[in-house]
Amino acid sequence: MKRRIALISTGGTIEKTYDELSGVLANQVSVLDFMLATLEIRGVSIQRVSLMNKDSLEMTAADHTLIAETATKLAATLAGVVVVHGTDRLAISGERCCELVGTPASPIVFTGAMRPYELRSTDALQNLTEALLAVQLVKPGVYVAMHNQVLQFPGVTKDKGAGTFVKEPPTGTSSPGGSGGRG
Amino acid sequence: MKRRIALISTGGTIEKTYDELSGVLANQVSVLDFMLATLEIRGVSIQRVSLMNKDSLEMTAADHTLIAETATKLAATLAGVVVVHGTDRLAISGERCCELVGTPASPIVFTGAMRPYELRSTDALQNLTEALLAVQLVKPGVYVAMHNQVLQFPGVTKDKGAGTFVKEPPTGTSSPGGSGGRG
Amino acid sequence: MKRRIALISTGGTIEKTYDELSGVLANQVSVLDFMLATLEIRGVSIQRVSLMNKDSLEMTAADHTLIAETATKLAATLAGVVVVHGTDRLAISGERCCELVGTPASPIVFTGAMRPYELRSTDALQNLTEALLAVQLVKPGVYVAMHNQVLQFPGVTKDKGAGTFVKEPPTGTSSPGGSGGRG
Amino acid sequence: MKRRIALISTGGTIEKTYDELSGVLANQVSVLDFMLATLEIRGVSIQRVSLMNKDSLEMTAADHTLIAETATKLAATLAGVVVVHGTDRLAISGERCCELVGTPASPIVFTGAMRPYELRSTDALQNLTEALLAVQLVKPGVYVAMHNQVLQFPGVTKDKGAGTFVKEPPTGTSSPGGSGGRG
Repeated sequence: MKRRIALISTGGTIEKTYDELSGVLANQVSVLDFMLATLEIRGVSIQRVSLMNKDSLEMTAADHTLIAETATKLAATLAGVVVVHGTDRLAISGERCCELVGTPASPIVFTGAMRPYELRSTDALQNLTEALLAVQLVKPGVYVAMHNQVLQFPGVTKDKGAGTFVKEPPTGTSSPGGSGGRG
Repeated sequence: MKRRIALISTGGTIEKTYDELSGVLANQVSVLDFMLATLEIRGVSIQRVSLMNKDSLEMTAADHTLIAETATKLAATLAGVVVVHGTDRLAISGERCCELVGTPASPIVFTGAMRPYELRSTDALQNLTEALLAVQLVKPGVYVAMHNQVLQFPGVTKDKGAGTFVKEPPTGTSSPGGSGGRG
Repeated sequence: MKRRIALISTGGTIEKTYDELSGVLANQVSVLDFMLATLEIRGVSIQRVSLMNKDSLEMTAADHTLIAETATKLAATLAGVVVVHGTDRLAISGERCCELVGTPASPIVFTGAMRPYELRSTDALQNLTEALLAVQLVKPGVYVAMHNQVLQFPGVTKDKGAGTFVKEPPTGTSSPGGSGGRG
Repeated sequence: MKRRIALISTGGTIEKTYDELSGVLANQVSVLDFMLATLEIRGVSIQRVSLMNKDSLEMTAADHTLIAETATKLAATLAGVVVVHGTDRLAISGERCCELVGTPASPIVFTGAMRPYELRSTDALQNLTEALLAVQLVKPGVYVAMHNQVLQFPGVTKDKGAGTFVKEPPTGTSSPGGSGGRG
């Protein structure tokens, strides 16, 4: 009786691999399946959706819309959706989901990484682990799960200095807090 | 505005280290702090409690009671408690928490590992990551978080063949499912 | 024009793997091929010989003789032989080679590890790397390559306290030094 | 009675680290000391010389001369020299050593890597291990040790397609083979 979720890959730092000839890290092949192979996944069954493999700095408005449409559509029929995304423009795709449907039928959880999985020291596995757990625990909504935090859209932005996501304080309301889990 | 939680270490496979002279894996020093150093922890601030360092097969009834009393007491004043525990007797300590207080004041989340952190291939980091996220997302109660699942006590047991925890189906009730997150 | 060498596996700590059910490290399957897959081997072509898979503390006199006979026989037709061996009794097999043939036709290089390859922190890859290089560089003879040292038999023993091999000072001779490379 | 050698770092792929802000791998700090900390070094005692930290594609003629002069000078007083160098221009520094002194007083062994140490999958540790062993085993001369091979200058070039070093066949001579160890 596992929950069936979609895992959408769009690229980003988390999936960058090293090209020996050019000596740079780039989005070439998806390494998500290698990451999944190192985890014990018993709570969800995963439907893989390879949507694109882009550094999010290169995403167009059409890309963000495609990601949001795909995620909200899958959320309508599955128990949840996890989206792996470059962190630089992750918040744009997250906000786009909210604009499209307000609250999706099941949780949509974005994640990414500041350091590629290919690196010896990386936050990729931590963040993927968190997204795959959070999608089972939070109420329907749009979130980012990363660095031991689950933050709910709208109002999430990347703090480039700190290298992580933060929740903007809502204006004129007495918010119960940023983490969407129990609020 | 991080949640303050306690992280109680009691030993178990997850913390076993290799002794070159004897050639065996044993509970010697806590490796929890090394594990924490590899994670980005931004959702919680952690108060470390080193309670014991035992293979759970060697725990006495008094040990289980001490663990349950310590966890429930800390849950009364903090936003949550994570307990790192050997998997063989983890369920005994979990049930003891339920017997002591029914529902604790904040979530108590047990975790452990089938393969020590010292191994190249291990579930230790995944499970610790999950426990440190779940403790922020679930309602007050006693849980085990491991292998992409959060299961709520009472009624959780280790399936030794599968090497993981399972939730016994409640008898005579129409349960909403095993994972305690949204139930 | 690679040199063709034999790689004999006999077990030992280097090859121990973790059994989740019993919670111990034991010699079960050879992990040598996994190790080789992580190295770039361009100087030699390797003929794998899986002779036994034993903790060397459990080796009998017949085992040591079998290892020595196999190694010296292969050294007669190939450009070299590497033997992966438990460190506790490695020196017995090494001395047995010297007793059998004095100087073999091509180098026989023993190696092993103090910490299994399965561990996150291990000397297994370093030692295997060294043996596979030393076998190309030293003169015909019997050696152990480990921990950045190449020591020539006879007269090599394990220093259990230091967890490594040492060369006994030869008595009454003006030795050119323990490392067999240039002597 | 360890041999005293110099370990000169000049940069190159082997030492590149990841900059989270820019998302690129670059020569920033030397990671050689981290690598050394993961190895058991008992055959040599190491004198670290941090000469420069450059991608070798950016080395000038003066850089190559400085490297060659430093290496040959240190070879005159120590038991050997290991030089960590970018692979693209490694052969230029190697040939420069030969031009300067012909045969140095003790072995000079160059090494590098096709994939930075920072990557999960890297040849950096293998190559450093090999250089630190080869420097003890080969005759005085200038070499590159990498990928299970020790090749002697002059006449070594990088095969960019294969991503490794090769020895050009000497013209008009019946060479005993490329590896400098026993030739």
